[in-house]
Amino acid sequence: MLIKVLGSAAGGGFPQWNCNCRNCADVRRGASGFTARTQSSLAVSSNGRDWVLLNASPDLRQQINATPALGSQASGELRNSPIKAAVLTNGDVDHISGLINLREMQPFLVYGSGRVLSVLSSNSIFKILNAEMVQRRELGLDAPVQLMGPGGDLGLTIEAFAVPGKVALYLEDTSKGADFGTVEGDTIGLKITAPESDKTFYYIPGCADVDARLSDRIRGAALVFFDGTLFTDDEMVKAGLMPKTGKRMGHISMSGSDGSIAAFASLGVERKVYVHINNSNPVLDENSPQRKEAEDAGWEIGYDGMEISL
Amino acid sequence: MLIKVLGSAAGGGFPQWNCNCRNCADVRRGASGFTARTQSSLAVSSNGRDWVLLNASPDLRQQINATPALGSQASGELRNSPIKAAVLTNGDVDHISGLINLREMQPFLVYGSGRVLSVLSSNSIFKILNAEMVQRRELGLDAPVQLMGPGGDLGLTIEAFAVPGKVALYLEDTSKGADFGTVEGDTIGLKITAPESDKTFYYIPGCADVDARLSDRIRGAALVFFDGTLFTDDEMVKAGLMPKTGKRMGHISMSGSDGSIAAFASLGVERKVYVHINNSNPVLDENSPQRKEAEDAGWEIGYDGMEISL
Repeated sequence: MLIKVLGSAAGGGFPQWNCNCRNCADVRRGASGFTARTQSSLAVSSNGRDWVLLNASPDLRQQINATPALGSQASGELRNSPIKAAVLTNGDVDHISGLINLREMQPFLVYGSGRVLSVLSSNSIFKILNAEMVQRRELGLDAPVQLMGPGGDLGLTIEAFAVPGKVALYLEDTSKGADFGTVEGDTIGLKITAPESDKTFYYIPGCADVDARLSDRIRGAALVFFDGTLFTDDEMVKAGLMPKTGKRMGHISMSGSDGSIAAFASLGVERKVYVHINNSNPVLDENSPQRKEAEDAGWEIGYDGMEISL
Repeated sequence: MLIKVLGSAAGGGFPQWNCNCRNCADVRRGASGFTARTQSSLAVSSNGRDWVLLNASPDLRQQINATPALGSQASGELRNSPIKAAVLTNGDVDHISGLINLREMQPFLVYGSGRVLSVLSSNSIFKILNAEMVQRRELGLDAPVQLMGPGGDLGLTIEAFAVPGKVALYLEDTSKGADFGTVEGDTIGLKITAPESDKTFYYIPGCADVDARLSDRIRGAALVFFDGTLFTDDEMVKAGLMPKTGKRMGHISMSGSDGSIAAFASLGVERKVYVHINNSNPVLDENSPQRKEAEDAGWEIGYDGMEISL
């Protein structure tokens, strides 16, 4: 199984268009230790030819151009794409709007929860994906699904599971109390398995808490890509960037007694990679003490173009 | 007045993700005479500080990163943007979906026809632009409008006018006959004027025909950016890329007796620049006879990063 990190940043990317924070300013001026990142997405393949997107970020066109394996040049056909399916973990704009780039009458399949698929069907802009060419399939919770492309079995199974989280920002309903109308399954993690090699990894780009259920699920895993939005819960507030904490946005922090570094410490996960990293996160500075703290705890900081073979 | 071409390609960009035509293959391998292009958008400013987008392409984040004048680094403020307004010429996905990149609580104004604004309001994904921060203003036809940013007058007026065209692909209604439910104003051109300098240019990225009304309007203009989608009406059909002609897609060709080169020949336009160029168009090859034909007729082939001062 081959895995490529197409984009390792949270929504907005790194740098973010309207942000002049130290990280964004440093990466723009090419400061040492800073690397630009596009928005959150992985690609996975069981055979190196047929690829599945895990989330479709607004930067997808740029990501495809930067990733020859995902381009049409891999085949001699006039119009073709190695992208055979896309799996969406939630309705966040930075996870679904990249689908818009995959128009032009190219067949592939889209998998998502019923709620995410209803967002696609209620937004006419997604009609640009011709329904005769692009099938949409509902992904239930806690049931492994054999991923299909237009040409058949892709040699991968996906199991979606609910994780603590929040409904997408633009779907928040303030009349519905402190959880803004969030329902179970609005944020999901994915267990991806290649049955032929029996290899498995987890992809959890958004998660508000590593609770007992999630801990039990991922204990001893070979590889987990995990929500690396913030280092500390109030870092955006303290930096004067935004009045929202990580908890308000549905993202656990890396640090602290209730953070992901602590939560994973005893789970025995062999390889732990942070993705969906917000521009405010000090781990984006390779020379920061926070970067060292995460790496000393056995975490890797995901980057665009990172490749892992399982 | 300063004008920057942010993206000079038609929808899909150049290269296009799923296309392996000669042009796309050549630009991917870095062949001499070929330059990659992002999707259709201009930026215009009366003062070099405050900028207005003319259309918002899916590549907007990449375009902002490539254009320092549009980045937050121009100001010392922690969160800021020189982009004060966006004007949309139609509801095409490649002209509106870039708005999604302009989230993050940054104030600016969006101008579009009533029909385009109704697309924005009926697609919940655009709620990511907080309505308290991002005002939407209807742009009527044939009436100059003083463009406003959140801080006031931007020193530019815009006049929208209907041009022959077609409703956006994803809004086509096949029950409504040969024009798919197109109504006047679905495709508009823009006349942009800087009152202080009394300079004017036209932006017409989609247009099905240079009829008498349009000819009268642009006769003698200092500068026109014009629909350069196709060189010949059936080039995509002949290349085996798509069964649609330019006429079916609402785009006039460059060549031929009913093409734009012929139509502009007697209009006395001082500077003529093709934008919205499809990947199939042979003018994208700098060494092609078609490129020479267009240039010999006084046309410039727009490119990303092109700057014009009026």
